[in-house]
Amino acid sequence: MKPKKNTRTREGAPATLGLADWSAALVHQVPGFRTAAVHCGLKRKSDKPDLALLVCDRVAAAAGVFTTNRVCAAPVKYSRKALAYTSGRARAVIVNAGNANACTGAQGARDAKEMAKLAALAIGAQPWEVLVCSTGVIGHPMPMDKIRKAVPELARRLRSRRAHGDFARAIMTTDLVRKTAGCTVRMFGRPVRFAGACKGSGMIAPRMATMLGFIATDAPVAPRVLQKALAEVVDRTFNCVTVDGDTSTNDTVLALASGTAAHRRLEETHGPHYEALCAGLYHVCDSLAQQIAADGEGAQHLVTVFVGGAKNDKQAKVIARTIAESPLVKTAIAGNDPNWGRIVCAAGRSGIKIKPEDCALTVCGHDLFRDGQPLPFDAKKVSEDMDGAEVSIVLMVGDGPGTSRFYTCDLTHGYITINADYHT
Amino acid sequence: MKPKKNTRTREGAPATLGLADWSAALVHQVPGFRTAAVHCGLKRKSDKPDLALLVCDRVAAAAGVFTTNRVCAAPVKYSRKALAYTSGRARAVIVNAGNANACTGAQGARDAKEMAKLAALAIGAQPWEVLVCSTGVIGHPMPMDKIRKAVPELARRLRSRRAHGDFARAIMTTDLVRKTAGCTVRMFGRPVRFAGACKGSGMIAPRMATMLGFIATDAPVAPRVLQKALAEVVDRTFNCVTVDGDTSTNDTVLALASGTAAHRRLEETHGPHYEALCAGLYHVCDSLAQQIAADGEGAQHLVTVFVGGAKNDKQAKVIARTIAESPLVKTAIAGNDPNWGRIVCAAGRSGIKIKPEDCALTVCGHDLFRDGQPLPFDAKKVSEDMDGAEVSIVLMVGDGPGTSRFYTCDLTHGYITINADYHT
Repeated sequence: MKPKKNTRTREGAPATLGLADWSAALVHQVPGFRTAAVHCGLKRKSDKPDLALLVCDRVAAAAGVFTTNRVCAAPVKYSRKALAYTSGRARAVIVNAGNANACTGAQGARDAKEMAKLAALAIGAQPWEVLVCSTGVIGHPMPMDKIRKAVPELARRLRSRRAHGDFARAIMTTDLVRKTAGCTVRMFGRPVRFAGACKGSGMIAPRMATMLGFIATDAPVAPRVLQKALAEVVDRTFNCVTVDGDTSTNDTVLALASGTAAHRRLEETHGPHYEALCAGLYHVCDSLAQQIAADGEGAQHLVTVFVGGAKNDKQAKVIARTIAESPLVKTAIAGNDPNWGRIVCAAGRSGIKIKPEDCALTVCGHDLFRDGQPLPFDAKKVSEDMDGAEVSIVLMVGDGPGTSRFYTCDLTHGYITINADYHT
Repeated sequence: MKPKKNTRTREGAPATLGLADWSAALVHQVPGFRTAAVHCGLKRKSDKPDLALLVCDRVAAAAGVFTTNRVCAAPVKYSRKALAYTSGRARAVIVNAGNANACTGAQGARDAKEMAKLAALAIGAQPWEVLVCSTGVIGHPMPMDKIRKAVPELARRLRSRRAHGDFARAIMTTDLVRKTAGCTVRMFGRPVRFAGACKGSGMIAPRMATMLGFIATDAPVAPRVLQKALAEVVDRTFNCVTVDGDTSTNDTVLALASGTAAHRRLEETHGPHYEALCAGLYHVCDSLAQQIAADGEGAQHLVTVFVGGAKNDKQAKVIARTIAESPLVKTAIAGNDPNWGRIVCAAGRSGIKIKPEDCALTVCGHDLFRDGQPLPFDAKKVSEDMDGAEVSIVLMVGDGPGTSRFYTCDLTHGYITINADYHT
């Protein structure tokens, strides 16, 4: 996203929850975790890192949320199976950028398995304790020779504790900025750290694919509790981001919990400690989700769509998604145009029963529409306020309790250039 | 759409069904119908016609299909009510471009009703026998003084039988080309004519709104039969077009049947005569739908997405729509890129259960993907073939009987310019 004059306000995200500010934390800084990254040649046009390891010193509780796309990549199938086989336990994640290992048939499945085996051998774990993630070009076989050569060097860097910051950089494809987030919460009276890294810009860029997210924590938590919390949080964060509405074949969010923070272990999916776990995950995932929208392909504005007053959260989410995915809303924002008609019209076609007479729309703090009719407003002033880095859309659709918040970006010439003109 | 070297093939549309070629017919050429158009000042930046009448000499069977958008304009509400009140009978349609009469509150409802009254008075009909359609800016009150002044002149032109071709021109907003279609079928042993006109380019352009379609026929048909046939046909034609996925507040398709072609009247919704009625409506609606996609905002390619082998037609339609609405598919086509990954990926995320191993993809006649893997192909050759005016995508997803065909256009810099940069 082009730098704009507004500063980030992070509306909707809770503040870091007490203790030292961990917002800049990297995953290897969470007690119990180490990372390493190398350039092995999968990113052909640069010498940036393209293969990375996230390793936990002990067997971690592990949880995963994967793409809902029916056409899903070999590493997604492998990691889903491994998590089921171990009932949510893992030692490491091996991740590469530059090749998505998607639409690669039976050979792709063998390659994903071999990547897990290579990493397991190098760190002294069982193959099914290693999860695999890939992102990059679709439909090309994985150049396994490059990976076979690189894994020993990866493992060496892990021991030397060098180049840790490169983990978040190794997973980038068309991303312009590295995306990390962290926070601290209190569980069982002790500080528990969370740190995350993710990548994602277009859901599938020309030859690259995927949103990938990784969260490391030292929270002491049972695997099934971690899985439930992660699924709940992803549904309100990563699943509330849209750049272009296209869900990739490789989307994956993994959380690993080393459990070193306390001797007790969270076994309940309710109560204050579970809430603290969710709050920590939420803070990290929400920040990463926002960073993905802001770094959307061609984005000049980060757009937050808030829908309130719906019958329930589910209906609010459908309306918010329809607004956030509307090309007409997104192009209007690119042009700094307070085009309330496009926003209300998108809400109207979402499939949810709403009455325009019950709707009230506010854009960047200006009331534009109420009781089925536009309000008088100074279009020039609103347009100026929209010309910052962030645009907020708040649409109330009634007096129900349902709310939803979606992140998206505007639709610009930059998006077309990246996705249509890349041959020239 | 920019002229390209390919000629139109109209794949999927039936040929004109015997008798003389009526494909260039205009609505006033159908026996029993007259039209007129004037410029009354609703299109402020030009002197093009912006107010028009379509009148039937006798009470016609009338049918309408309206927007599903919950935020719908006053004329939509009025026409829906009028059709219900008369049980599907009408004498005329008054239609204007330049103001959509949407989000205009109680005054908008009164204005739509007054438009019907003015037209009724001028042609000697009852107010509820006149249907009303509007397209243009949203949220501005209709300048009724201009319409009051213009209706008498409209009625005079109707009698003088002048300027008939302007009906299709009067309903245009951001359309670059006039859209008309016609055909002839045989019912009860006699020739029956169909002619249609429509408008539509973006679902909502900067200040303009709406897809409007009008079909006149001399078919002798009962109102409820016409309504059933129109609804069925619209579902397979106009409802299978997407430019940007945005459904407008004013979308309306009206069919009027004068019944002058024969003394008998079709009362059945099955059998060969009903099939003939549907075939005539289908031919006109399909051609108009194709013309809308080809004239989509910024379009350089008309894209036909055919999905076959699905479990049923409904599932095929969901897959076809998802492909046709994917910004990544549409930008790839803008760049003449045979990006099979984006097409298969869009199909995968449609929500319909498909297996990539069962899929086969053909683009512009070239096989690109089969059995879960890409096939070897000459990317340069395929790209050259995509550089025509029309691009066909055929995706088989199994061996089921379900099929669907969607029309769309590519997503180009032109679309962004029209929808984001119109202030500058």
